[in-house]
Amino acid sequence: MDQYINPLNSRYSSKEMLYIFSPKFKYTTWRKLWYNLALTQQELGIDISKEQLNKLFKHIENIDLNLVEKYEKKFKHEVMAHLYAYADLIGDDARKILHLGVTSAYLMDNTDLIQIKEALLLIKNNLTKLIKTLKEFSIKHKDLATLAYTHLQEAQLTTLGKRSSLWLQSLIFDFEELEFILSNMCFRGVKGTVGSQSSFSELFSSNFKKVKDLDINLAKKMGFDKVYKITSQTYDRKFDSSILNFLSNLSQSAHKITNDIRFMQHLKEIEEHFEEEQIGSSAMPYKRNPIYSERVASLAKFIMSLQASGGFIAATQWLERTLDDSACKRLNTPQAFLAADAILILLNKIFNNIRVNEKIIETHVKIEMPFILTEDILMKATKNGGDRQILHEKIRIYSMQVRESLYSGITANNLIKLILDDASFRLTPKDIEEVLNPNANIGFAPCQVEDFIKEMVNPILKET
Amino acid sequence: MDQYINPLNSRYSSKEMLYIFSPKFKYTTWRKLWYNLALTQQELGIDISKEQLNKLFKHIENIDLNLVEKYEKKFKHEVMAHLYAYADLIGDDARKILHLGVTSAYLMDNTDLIQIKEALLLIKNNLTKLIKTLKEFSIKHKDLATLAYTHLQEAQLTTLGKRSSLWLQSLIFDFEELEFILSNMCFRGVKGTVGSQSSFSELFSSNFKKVKDLDINLAKKMGFDKVYKITSQTYDRKFDSSILNFLSNLSQSAHKITNDIRFMQHLKEIEEHFEEEQIGSSAMPYKRNPIYSERVASLAKFIMSLQASGGFIAATQWLERTLDDSACKRLNTPQAFLAADAILILLNKIFNNIRVNEKIIETHVKIEMPFILTEDILMKATKNGGDRQILHEKIRIYSMQVRESLYSGITANNLIKLILDDASFRLTPKDIEEVLNPNANIGFAPCQVEDFIKEMVNPILKET
Amino acid sequence: MDQYINPLNSRYSSKEMLYIFSPKFKYTTWRKLWYNLALTQQELGIDISKEQLNKLFKHIENIDLNLVEKYEKKFKHEVMAHLYAYADLIGDDARKILHLGVTSAYLMDNTDLIQIKEALLLIKNNLTKLIKTLKEFSIKHKDLATLAYTHLQEAQLTTLGKRSSLWLQSLIFDFEELEFILSNMCFRGVKGTVGSQSSFSELFSSNFKKVKDLDINLAKKMGFDKVYKITSQTYDRKFDSSILNFLSNLSQSAHKITNDIRFMQHLKEIEEHFEEEQIGSSAMPYKRNPIYSERVASLAKFIMSLQASGGFIAATQWLERTLDDSACKRLNTPQAFLAADAILILLNKIFNNIRVNEKIIETHVKIEMPFILTEDILMKATKNGGDRQILHEKIRIYSMQVRESLYSGITANNLIKLILDDASFRLTPKDIEEVLNPNANIGFAPCQVEDFIKEMVNPILKET
Amino acid sequence: MDQYINPLNSRYSSKEMLYIFSPKFKYTTWRKLWYNLALTQQELGIDISKEQLNKLFKHIENIDLNLVEKYEKKFKHEVMAHLYAYADLIGDDARKILHLGVTSAYLMDNTDLIQIKEALLLIKNNLTKLIKTLKEFSIKHKDLATLAYTHLQEAQLTTLGKRSSLWLQSLIFDFEELEFILSNMCFRGVKGTVGSQSSFSELFSSNFKKVKDLDINLAKKMGFDKVYKITSQTYDRKFDSSILNFLSNLSQSAHKITNDIRFMQHLKEIEEHFEEEQIGSSAMPYKRNPIYSERVASLAKFIMSLQASGGFIAATQWLERTLDDSACKRLNTPQAFLAADAILILLNKIFNNIRVNEKIIETHVKIEMPFILTEDILMKATKNGGDRQILHEKIRIYSMQVRESLYSGITANNLIKLILDDASFRLTPKDIEEVLNPNANIGFAPCQVEDFIKEMVNPILKET
Repeated sequence: MDQYINPLNSRYSSKEMLYIFSPKFKYTTWRKLWYNLALTQQELGIDISKEQLNKLFKHIENIDLNLVEKYEKKFKHEVMAHLYAYADLIGDDARKILHLGVTSAYLMDNTDLIQIKEALLLIKNNLTKLIKTLKEFSIKHKDLATLAYTHLQEAQLTTLGKRSSLWLQSLIFDFEELEFILSNMCFRGVKGTVGSQSSFSELFSSNFKKVKDLDINLAKKMGFDKVYKITSQTYDRKFDSSILNFLSNLSQSAHKITNDIRFMQHLKEIEEHFEEEQIGSSAMPYKRNPIYSERVASLAKFIMSLQASGGFIAATQWLERTLDDSACKRLNTPQAFLAADAILILLNKIFNNIRVNEKIIETHVKIEMPFILTEDILMKATKNGGDRQILHEKIRIYSMQVRESLYSGITANNLIKLILDDASFRLTPKDIEEVLNPNANIGFAPCQVEDFIKEMVNPILKET
Repeated sequence: MDQYINPLNSRYSSKEMLYIFSPKFKYTTWRKLWYNLALTQQELGIDISKEQLNKLFKHIENIDLNLVEKYEKKFKHEVMAHLYAYADLIGDDARKILHLGVTSAYLMDNTDLIQIKEALLLIKNNLTKLIKTLKEFSIKHKDLATLAYTHLQEAQLTTLGKRSSLWLQSLIFDFEELEFILSNMCFRGVKGTVGSQSSFSELFSSNFKKVKDLDINLAKKMGFDKVYKITSQTYDRKFDSSILNFLSNLSQSAHKITNDIRFMQHLKEIEEHFEEEQIGSSAMPYKRNPIYSERVASLAKFIMSLQASGGFIAATQWLERTLDDSACKRLNTPQAFLAADAILILLNKIFNNIRVNEKIIETHVKIEMPFILTEDILMKATKNGGDRQILHEKIRIYSMQVRESLYSGITANNLIKLILDDASFRLTPKDIEEVLNPNANIGFAPCQVEDFIKEMVNPILKET
Repeated sequence: MDQYINPLNSRYSSKEMLYIFSPKFKYTTWRKLWYNLALTQQELGIDISKEQLNKLFKHIENIDLNLVEKYEKKFKHEVMAHLYAYADLIGDDARKILHLGVTSAYLMDNTDLIQIKEALLLIKNNLTKLIKTLKEFSIKHKDLATLAYTHLQEAQLTTLGKRSSLWLQSLIFDFEELEFILSNMCFRGVKGTVGSQSSFSELFSSNFKKVKDLDINLAKKMGFDKVYKITSQTYDRKFDSSILNFLSNLSQSAHKITNDIRFMQHLKEIEEHFEEEQIGSSAMPYKRNPIYSERVASLAKFIMSLQASGGFIAATQWLERTLDDSACKRLNTPQAFLAADAILILLNKIFNNIRVNEKIIETHVKIEMPFILTEDILMKATKNGGDRQILHEKIRIYSMQVRESLYSGITANNLIKLILDDASFRLTPKDIEEVLNPNANIGFAPCQVEDFIKEMVNPILKET
Repeated sequence: MDQYINPLNSRYSSKEMLYIFSPKFKYTTWRKLWYNLALTQQELGIDISKEQLNKLFKHIENIDLNLVEKYEKKFKHEVMAHLYAYADLIGDDARKILHLGVTSAYLMDNTDLIQIKEALLLIKNNLTKLIKTLKEFSIKHKDLATLAYTHLQEAQLTTLGKRSSLWLQSLIFDFEELEFILSNMCFRGVKGTVGSQSSFSELFSSNFKKVKDLDINLAKKMGFDKVYKITSQTYDRKFDSSILNFLSNLSQSAHKITNDIRFMQHLKEIEEHFEEEQIGSSAMPYKRNPIYSERVASLAKFIMSLQASGGFIAATQWLERTLDDSACKRLNTPQAFLAADAILILLNKIFNNIRVNEKIIETHVKIEMPFILTEDILMKATKNGGDRQILHEKIRIYSMQVRESLYSGITANNLIKLILDDASFRLTPKDIEEVLNPNANIGFAPCQVEDFIKEMVNPILKET
């Protein structure tokens, strides 16, 4: 009540993502790192007993925060405090082989990478769901003719499923980037205070092969296929920067998609789900505000803004490491993930409940079709023997009349009637019908959707 | 334990700043806004009784969060929930005149502005303290000759107090901007759903004068001298953007200052205070890491990065308001203030405890003086009748010899000795002494410091 | 033809702004700085003759670029090359007193400030014009009722002049910031290689008063009221950062304004001027694309993005100066000004030629009025004795019917007819007319516009 | 002389990169796009003669800019003007089949992609060169012990080749990203005004297979393996954003690398090449400023700042396309490439000419070794039977004495002597020698370098 409450915690993000960046996740990961270090060292011939290992393993989960706090007050050093608290549990014998050859950065940096990996996998999971939902949406509406807008002006026709395929394509690009990151991701491993692994020189009698084995075997135990071949005290902060790039890219997609939804809801063509009991605007109950889309756009702006901090940190790390990364990293990375998590939850929610007002879409198409297709009408009339020049001017004048009358709200679009009634056009209702058929004017939009989904989306979803 | 913990809450920021952005501050402010609205309406002739006002006033502080939560579950509307919870306390009679003519934005936007104003005043307070500390520091060291660096290469001499005056000047620029913002700051007041104040048209029988009085009188009760003459549903989001600009500017100063400190600590010329019991690097106990300066630089990067979100929001608000500001505003503004608060606390702490190693500074000056002053030495020698061309080449050769010997770590700078020993220079030890006197080479640095403090700093501190 | 051509040069910016950042402006300013330095030194007692001064003055404009280039190839130093080329013109005698006591930064930094000041004044001039135009626009349309949108959904009524007053207000905030910057702006003056003015110590026999006089008198000659009391080798790069903040703020206003225009043009309520002979979309000649507004938004994004570089430079300057500002400064500052210049030209052009389709605005209002005012209708009906609960449900049902029929494009909004025809509402046409009068629903919008212009705009324009 | 001159044109970038973004490259690419469109259409059965194709082909290079300008004045439409100018050359017959079924975006968007691809390949070329140079550098200095710094404080030892391997690794990450982008890159192809390819429906009798063939065959002719399956009027602006991400990432590497160089040059351990005739600082000729590294850092800041504009554009494109991308794209993409080009040229130049002062590096190591290795000395002494507690305190006191004496500039580090002279340590010179051997304290740094180069660098360079 007396402190700032971060809305990502209290309002927007999932328990799963909040857990990944929690103290519990972090500190149990530290103990797993200690345990697996000892285990791997033992496997590589260091004198560590099964009993010692068992003691480490047994106490991974039971973290006594009060005890930790007591030690932290004493040492003013987070890792030391946790080391002592763990040591109290595992006893003097196991304590001897704890933290062998490593420094704080072994725990800090590896845990950062583990958290990021878990967070990426959670993002991947929700992104996959969203891709699946948008695939269904696109297939369902692949033939639904709708006005396409360029410059926010009615242009020609597209289909709703084609438009949503473009949203889907943006997310596919993000998905591909995510897979690229995951497949390149490395564990930091054991590297020492300045990256030279000198503390392991004595431990393994200058046997570099063994140190490399320690690094990669440990990485595998912690869920990584690869380990950085070299680091300074820390892994290259460019990695963190690339993570923020990815989350920003995903946010750009989300911002663009929800902007489009907000326009379409403005046109009443689609509507976010509105719960019965929900109070929208208390003063204006007739309104249907696309508040989830707006929230997505808002969180996207936040993430996009954080992107700069990743680059700034990477660019200003000095020599083997400076600590001007730490406080910022504790703020930008978890929050970018939490906000991205919220965005994906919201987008899934929006598309699972969205209402498409087909009739309204159809009406809008009908009103504009005559304007959009004046060129086609003219071609038809000329083919039937009309004078192009004269008819062109007539169409211009008729169009303006109709536009004005439409704006005055008193009539439907009667441009076609004016043209049919004018004998100089030499057009029959059937001629017009052929031209005005929306399905004849959506081009290859439906085929494109099918093709795109088959070639680009299904492989990702492992569907056919 | 199971959730992300924002380190601004748990580690870096002050209770005062955390309180300003707390639910408690926010919700009691809402009640104050309701109370003062009614009070001002009564003063302007609306039929509101003293009893009704008293009931509102009496229950400003006792917020029953459980009750609020109950209502929020029902209405899914934060303001409505608080309105009902308040109404339960004040009773049916007072309830009738609660929230008269206003909408949610009356509470939300005005509270945002009140929080920002309080936060700015807290920043101002700590910034003033820092300016005072740096003033003392600058005066104390105004004569202390030290190597000036351009391109991070030893250039000529300055004084430590002059250098710190430049840090001070950056903060003075921030202070001036802060005063500019505070003096222009406006209350949002009562403006209605789209800014037209139409709900007050009936309430005050179309009397615009009365509505203006309501706006300004209410503003004064809530601590503001001015009220926006016009708004849409909300005040212009450019204001929020300007706040983030200011906090970014302050961060730029802090980043530059702490970078300089980190260089000087690298040179061992100054040292952040290091507590006796503190564990620095557990593996490298001999190190004195400037961790507070590094933390300042890290938080500064975070704030500078948030700046972009302010502009992005302001630039993409559509027509009378869209809600894609809200979630981002809840994240960027409080956190930028919390981090700036932490920065000022840290900078005050650093400068209150900093250790200046005058002897080391002096040594560094001595080593470089001969190099820096070769031109002056040459002038003196030429004046005494030496051949400039020949001596110039000799100096070049001697300098290189000395530089090499210095790097090999075996001797002090004996350039002067070489010159004195070389009869072609025709220089006496006294000649050299005159040239090499550091105080003769710091130019007007001490005068500048005095002048700057008198003219620019003291007026702000209201000192002389 | 074979090189990148910057479109700010070839397409968007004015000759005036392009000139301010041209080599000609820069190099003649250098000569003015040399001349005025000598002049002021003479006035303060340095032995400089009138003839010497005359020679400097005479050759300010005639810069022989070929000669400069020849010298630059030799020295690889821009300032040296210009110094020699100038010296060749002024002769040996005047040469002796050229560049007395100063370094390259005297020319570079002061010229930067002079360019920025000239550019700010040009911006101020065009911004003032724009404010004037928008003032006229706002007054003209202050009573024109139009739909206000929140969440891009029809909300209540405002007036067009009120909406444009909000645009105007954003620009007023920018104007105030501009005046703040101009009134605080300082000349860098003569400070020496590291800011200690040590070269003037000998020149003025350690007389600090004289050096201060030199600084301020020189500043005045170059058009500045103030001079920095202290600098390092350079003025504080926070100043450049504040300039980019201002230009970003102005861009945020422009982006918001043109977004609104683009929506209104989407609604056909307003239209950018479209020249007769202009080819819009060759494929879609019926379109009226708001291309100038789009260009403004595009340039605004560019400027907003450059803002970060200003902060980055200021934050990472080390000690007395590092050169990692220079290349970036040559790119970000001129281009931010050139783009801002283009934005103001475009906005002035847009508003000087904009077409307001009042009839369309009126139609849109009429269509939505019944929905917007259902609450008022209900109140009237209840007052006349109707049962609120029953009527509320009826209105809901009627509204939905009408909405659907409107979307099908076949009729005008007949909600009112349905209500009048339903006897349970007990409403007469006159009752309805009172409620539906747009002018009764725009609140105090016109008064606000008048008040705002009188209090906030006229003082700036020095109009009444 | 009268206009702003962009320094990327006049100072920093290569002719090759400037040409890629030149009008000549752009407009000949347009003609190639027209020619290859017709050629591919003919191959797919459209009635186009060999003569018509020949005429198109013959006039690809001879662009008459005066003629274009004449037409542009008439139509105010860039593409139209070029189309007419081309048509004048190819004659009436070929004109009939020019631009068949396509719109302006066919030329604009595809050309953007072609320019980006060429620019990426040029970057790749220079980046490969740089990787090669840094590989040689790293191998050469893989054993050279040097002080590692954490927090900019002397930490333990690393080797120069290990440090430069970390720089190299950053560039390898960039290289991998570049390959990822290139391998995913698509041609925009022929998609029509809103992306539906409707104009090709008639041309190819609704045969989607043929339209797909047109798209991919055309792409291949223009040098692309892939074509977007779907687009709106334009390809997804997220692609441009990803390009700016890449260039920003590369800049972050460059900024970090050059920061490190600037520190090392500060320490005199390395030096950028300084040309004999070069005037550094005219006032301070003894200085060796790392100006190329500073320029790299400066350009890097510019690019990193532009990154935000890419995301902003992608996030705010509305529906099938808005034009608020155009002006910004003309500024941010070419300039980011030009600046990145300049950075790679500079880095290649720096590393091809860098001077490593091995002796100075060695001296610095020697001075600090006793401090760094106090722990090892203590261990040895304890092993020999010394009392750890007592000796630890003694070492602390001796260290402080030596540090002070070093700062006073009068002596070498005699800590070892003090220890040897103190019998309580029980250490022989040979004992000390073993501990102090730098090569015994660089850990596995040389092995890491070899391993890293073998596994990560050579595959990229296709070397072994």
